[in-house]
Amino acid sequence: MYVVCVTIWVKPGHEEEFRRATEANHRGTRTEPGNVRFDVLAAVDDPARFFLYEVYRSAEDFAAHQRTPHYLAWKAAVADWMAQPRQGVKHTSLWPVDESF
Amino acid sequence: MYVVCVTIWVKPGHEEEFRRATEANHRGTRTEPGNVRFDVLAAVDDPARFFLYEVYRSAEDFAAHQRTPHYLAWKAAVADWMAQPRQGVKHTSLWPVDESF
Repeated sequence: MYVVCVTIWVKPGHEEEFRRATEANHRGTRTEPGNVRFDVLAAVDDPARFFLYEVYRSAEDFAAHQRTPHYLAWKAAVADWMAQPRQGVKHTSLWPVDESF
Repeated sequence: MYVVCVTIWVKPGHEEEFRRATEANHRGTRTEPGNVRFDVLAAVDDPARFFLYEVYRSAEDFAAHQRTPHYLAWKAAVADWMAQPRQGVKHTSLWPVDESF
């Protein structure tokens, strides 16, 4: 699997609208044939910190995600709410094996 | 869900033994009743960088994990291979809802 891990810090006061926009992106992304997971997490110790755990079957599937209307709408909506640039790290999965995802 | 995200940097030359030790920890953790996922990832751009995505039903289940023989064996095995302290961030999940994990 091709896994993109994104850490996000939101400007104070924009947490709720960030959550709403990201829920819509979650729902849209989960309909993509190449997407396996799109988990949205909130940090326990920092209300402005969020994490996206995005699992795709391949790097090409992630590239396709970045062309979807729901991703582009999310990207535009959240741009002004970022407290700092998002930190995205790309991975390949070791365990579980792909068939077990 | 209670989700622990751990970023790990391994000293050069210890990547393979780190992978073997972590596969054993993955297998043991997945047998815990309170564990939902234990994904082990390798960064695409840095062969020494790894990521653990650990999903538990509750904070108490994570505390129980930290008392298991497989976790304690892993912790002791990898201690000397860390290039810097591990970075663990604790989260609660927003989406999907718990029943869909």
